[in-house]
Amino acid sequence: MKVVVIDGGSRPNGNTEILTEYVIQNLTVEKIYLKDYNIQPIIDMRHSMEGFQDRKDDYNSIIERILPNDILIFSTPIYWYSMSGTMKNFIDRWSQTLRDPKYPDFKNKMASKTAFVIAVGGDDPHIKGLPMIQQFNYIFDFIGIEFAGYILGNGNKPEEVIQDKAALFAATQIRNKLTENK
Amino acid sequence: MKVVVIDGGSRPNGNTEILTEYVIQNLTVEKIYLKDYNIQPIIDMRHSMEGFQDRKDDYNSIIERILPNDILIFSTPIYWYSMSGTMKNFIDRWSQTLRDPKYPDFKNKMASKTAFVIAVGGDDPHIKGLPMIQQFNYIFDFIGIEFAGYILGNGNKPEEVIQDKAALFAATQIRNKLTENK
Amino acid sequence: MKVVVIDGGSRPNGNTEILTEYVIQNLTVEKIYLKDYNIQPIIDMRHSMEGFQDRKDDYNSIIERILPNDILIFSTPIYWYSMSGTMKNFIDRWSQTLRDPKYPDFKNKMASKTAFVIAVGGDDPHIKGLPMIQQFNYIFDFIGIEFAGYILGNGNKPEEVIQDKAALFAATQIRNKLTENK
Amino acid sequence: MKVVVIDGGSRPNGNTEILTEYVIQNLTVEKIYLKDYNIQPIIDMRHSMEGFQDRKDDYNSIIERILPNDILIFSTPIYWYSMSGTMKNFIDRWSQTLRDPKYPDFKNKMASKTAFVIAVGGDDPHIKGLPMIQQFNYIFDFIGIEFAGYILGNGNKPEEVIQDKAALFAATQIRNKLTENK
Repeated sequence: MKVVVIDGGSRPNGNTEILTEYVIQNLTVEKIYLKDYNIQPIIDMRHSMEGFQDRKDDYNSIIERILPNDILIFSTPIYWYSMSGTMKNFIDRWSQTLRDPKYPDFKNKMASKTAFVIAVGGDDPHIKGLPMIQQFNYIFDFIGIEFAGYILGNGNKPEEVIQDKAALFAATQIRNKLTENK
Repeated sequence: MKVVVIDGGSRPNGNTEILTEYVIQNLTVEKIYLKDYNIQPIIDMRHSMEGFQDRKDDYNSIIERILPNDILIFSTPIYWYSMSGTMKNFIDRWSQTLRDPKYPDFKNKMASKTAFVIAVGGDDPHIKGLPMIQQFNYIFDFIGIEFAGYILGNGNKPEEVIQDKAALFAATQIRNKLTENK
Repeated sequence: MKVVVIDGGSRPNGNTEILTEYVIQNLTVEKIYLKDYNIQPIIDMRHSMEGFQDRKDDYNSIIERILPNDILIFSTPIYWYSMSGTMKNFIDRWSQTLRDPKYPDFKNKMASKTAFVIAVGGDDPHIKGLPMIQQFNYIFDFIGIEFAGYILGNGNKPEEVIQDKAALFAATQIRNKLTENK
Repeated sequence: MKVVVIDGGSRPNGNTEILTEYVIQNLTVEKIYLKDYNIQPIIDMRHSMEGFQDRKDDYNSIIERILPNDILIFSTPIYWYSMSGTMKNFIDRWSQTLRDPKYPDFKNKMASKTAFVIAVGGDDPHIKGLPMIQQFNYIFDFIGIEFAGYILGNGNKPEEVIQDKAALFAATQIRNKLTENK
């Protein structure tokens, strides 16, 4: 079982990253901090003759690092009641990869994976984060990924998520699942 | 009544833009195509000593064009069941402006505005677009904008939204509201 | 194409009924006003030896009137952000019918039908009614009914829905669909 | 701190009741099993001259037992992706009490209370139960109740919820809150 964290945060040691680190402690995990890469927004070329063009950014290299993994952990702060724009731009690009002859098996490979979502927010995340969870569910459904669980953590000030005992417990549970299946 | 369209699309003449043009026909409207600008993702510096830094991009110039308007039309294709990453990055940056001494009245000014959302998608938008509407509602609530209405249009192939008569009718209704209040 | 209206309202000529009548005008339609019948709440007996018991109420007679129809129109006022308790009790009982040897084809027959939802509320129905629409979607998905459309109308005072032009337009569209397929 | 459980279940020792009992063990708590009472559906008489009429059922006696409490625990199985029809009928009647001269302080009194929701379902409750949580949130917002937390437990077969460790942990946390504030 190979695990990759796809981190959509914008600052080091944010609450979301702390919670995700708590999940993966002592595990060997690939970590991808999207903010460290150049990921251009999608340009929808589905309907143009020339088709999608290579955006000449780091996006494909990230796809290539993700594909060998069995478990995807989407780790994002809740910005304005949804995933960060950085993570959204990354996911938007899947529309391109789905049509990219370089990745003919993209959907099939993604459909064999399992995902968790870890998200921390400061404005009532257990209520106002629910639409985001529904969206991840639609996203995973579309591409065929199994949605194995999520944590909505509460935190605003630095390290505040550490006080969210339910989030920490849920983190332990995900860690147990990852360890059992190692 | 001054109206601005904030367009989150990635291609010219997409279904969302067609529907939005149908709303604003014959009206004098400012249009901002976010894809034409350099808008960097937020870097969350709320908790660092130095605070938010100028990102040296086009973001502030867009804020300055938006602020004089009374009506904001958020026009975005539905990508992966939510607004485009381009639009999300733009909204994420509001967290910075809320703390920017250059815009001390940002929240107050935004709170005097009225917004519409126009979004077109091809995968069951009247159901799977609902979480996005809930998110826009939370966003507008937070900043104090009045959410005056939305259209979820159906369209996948080029110009297909023209066949969505309910969307066109709703577009006419929004146009009437904009015209009455001119 | 046979059409049945399943009405969950509690008063005659309520806004929801007015909107539904606007949909079905000039059509031959079966109407079932749930409030006029004795429909007991479900007693969950899935896990008891004796199984579900006949509740000796009017529920089965309603199922028998519904089954011959092709189109189901669920018409309910929005009470407390969801369908009326009367309508909910009716749907809850489907769990019994799914296991009732008297209706061995219940799921198959339901799965051949198409449904519309018509709901009117007075407290921001286009936002606060969305979870109810998501629930109807889950309900129809489970049983296999095709969810062909919904109207969320706005109305609080008597007959106020008549001023909701978008709702009336959507009603016309549903009427056209029902007429075309007659 | 006085605590009341409002139970919307239909069978003894259902998974929801087990989880709720786990929350309140060793606490002195009032329990109201709605199924044991005659609660008529609302008849909406807001717009008629005579106004709401006494339904001559047990509803008012339940309101009187609830009002002296500080904490309300709404405990309901998830039937068809929402609260049971029995619980919905109970909540629907609040519209009557809000206008009942016998309870002039109903809204004020309710607005001083804190609520938890405990709900168990067997069909992906952490996703498909989310619209119900959003509805409870709107309900509590309207009447002014503080929504202090919820548990969505997983369980289909008898006693299956006992294996949902995250639900049990969350139950312990609610119990701790209830105990601290005793």
